[in-house]
Amino acid sequence: MHFTLFQILDLLGTFAFAISGASLAIKKEFDVFGIFVLAFVTAIGGGTVRDVLIGEQPVSWMHSSELIICIVFGAFSAIIFNRWMNKLNYFVFLFDAIGLGFFTIAGIEKGLNFELNIFICISLGTISATFGGLIRDIISGEKPMLLMRKEIYAIASASGGCLFFILQFLEVNQSVNVISCISFVFLVRIITSKYGIKLPIIKEK
Amino acid sequence: MHFTLFQILDLLGTFAFAISGASLAIKKEFDVFGIFVLAFVTAIGGGTVRDVLIGEQPVSWMHSSELIICIVFGAFSAIIFNRWMNKLNYFVFLFDAIGLGFFTIAGIEKGLNFELNIFICISLGTISATFGGLIRDIISGEKPMLLMRKEIYAIASASGGCLFFILQFLEVNQSVNVISCISFVFLVRIITSKYGIKLPIIKEK
Amino acid sequence: MHFTLFQILDLLGTFAFAISGASLAIKKEFDVFGIFVLAFVTAIGGGTVRDVLIGEQPVSWMHSSELIICIVFGAFSAIIFNRWMNKLNYFVFLFDAIGLGFFTIAGIEKGLNFELNIFICISLGTISATFGGLIRDIISGEKPMLLMRKEIYAIASASGGCLFFILQFLEVNQSVNVISCISFVFLVRIITSKYGIKLPIIKEK
Repeated sequence: MHFTLFQILDLLGTFAFAISGASLAIKKEFDVFGIFVLAFVTAIGGGTVRDVLIGEQPVSWMHSSELIICIVFGAFSAIIFNRWMNKLNYFVFLFDAIGLGFFTIAGIEKGLNFELNIFICISLGTISATFGGLIRDIISGEKPMLLMRKEIYAIASASGGCLFFILQFLEVNQSVNVISCISFVFLVRIITSKYGIKLPIIKEK
Repeated sequence: MHFTLFQILDLLGTFAFAISGASLAIKKEFDVFGIFVLAFVTAIGGGTVRDVLIGEQPVSWMHSSELIICIVFGAFSAIIFNRWMNKLNYFVFLFDAIGLGFFTIAGIEKGLNFELNIFICISLGTISATFGGLIRDIISGEKPMLLMRKEIYAIASASGGCLFFILQFLEVNQSVNVISCISFVFLVRIITSKYGIKLPIIKEK
Repeated sequence: MHFTLFQILDLLGTFAFAISGASLAIKKEFDVFGIFVLAFVTAIGGGTVRDVLIGEQPVSWMHSSELIICIVFGAFSAIIFNRWMNKLNYFVFLFDAIGLGFFTIAGIEKGLNFELNIFICISLGTISATFGGLIRDIISGEKPMLLMRKEIYAIASASGGCLFFILQFLEVNQSVNVISCISFVFLVRIITSKYGIKLPIIKEK
């Protein structure tokens, strides 16, 4: 049951990231093949970098047909529904925020399996959650949004990772912890976006 | 004999990709060292990403002096012959198309050795064949041609990969299959380029 | 003692690279989180690519708390002292040159441990020393300085690597060799920068 929740969130997150990649490719007038490539890269980029850094190879999507079907389905959805995408934008945003939460926790879990320290685990979570979008932006020639983001994005993932270890220290039940952290990342993303909350910039003097 | 054919194609492909990297570096007025770096990165980039993804490390060029000599020779050729390069352009284009075919099949063979499924094998073939050029474009600040390509490029590699498995399913002899697929990728690239055939774009609405 | 010298240089180099990444992030008006990300990526990027290429995973920074503390400290320094940074620029330049020298030798040592040939070892040294800056430039949307560099940079690292093997061939004491090579890279960098010495460009005809 717990495992099934994980799988559903994993697929939803992958699906959302695939849509975000495909939508950007459509916007930039890539050809049909390019749309699938960008959907693929966005959805599996973060997990791939994480797996390569810790040495989990072949990287995990190579053994997961569900993920690949999910990406293809996401890219098709973006192509078919792109004329309604302006209305769908909010759903994409929601799925993206869910994906951000899930991939953060998935990255941390992998780090714990490899017995890495807390700081590294949180870094792995954030890398899993954000590097897919970073690679999408670099490949498609966009300014990388990870760093220039006018919204709270990577920090939402990192603070969710911190919460995970705080709740673990407080001996909160594992399932409750996972759901709490994913919800937290999701809510931080939604709320800071709605109210335009930003991190401070250090002014160059 | 079959092995020798493979090696010749591998070296020809590497040589062509090295020339393409070095030529771009000359065009962008990189210094002499930069020319060799870009030749190197273009020629070994695709295979390196493939090896890292499946966990074949140290990556294969670390144990192949022939490849490195071939890259250095390719970069020197680009430097020496660059005043005739406009005339040589067609030869570079031909070598590049041969390389595209070979690296596609080499990637698929590696995937099969690791017992990965058909879709992943074809992806690995395409990654091997195209990521060298992608990294070349990103490093040198060009718009990545992989996705924006006005010509059929990555899809030529991917369709060659599909043909490989169709012929394998039809129990065609391995050597015939390999030669057919490389020729197919080569011809798709040449013919679509000559007649300006493109993949459709999904218009944003 | 020899080991301690290594560690000090490693930390100094990491510290310098963290400062260079954080300073660029401040200049580009990234938010506070982005500053730490860019400091981190610049300081560990080169070593990470090296480790992934040879298959040393989890990559080395995952087990080194000292390096991470050093990076955080470097980023904080850049934030706090950035109003004096114009005056500090020369110190950053010095630290950066020390880091370039150290990471070159560290990369070569790793290559030797994996019994790779001389050319590959020198390449690994140069990759270790320069890819952090390359990734920094790509992520932050700068023109990559590795290749377009108007100054001698990567070639300083590569020539230091050549010197290492020449001195080793002459059976110079290991510690003397290491210190000589780091000093050599450092001096090549300082002197060519001071006198504006550049590598030749191949003019496109």
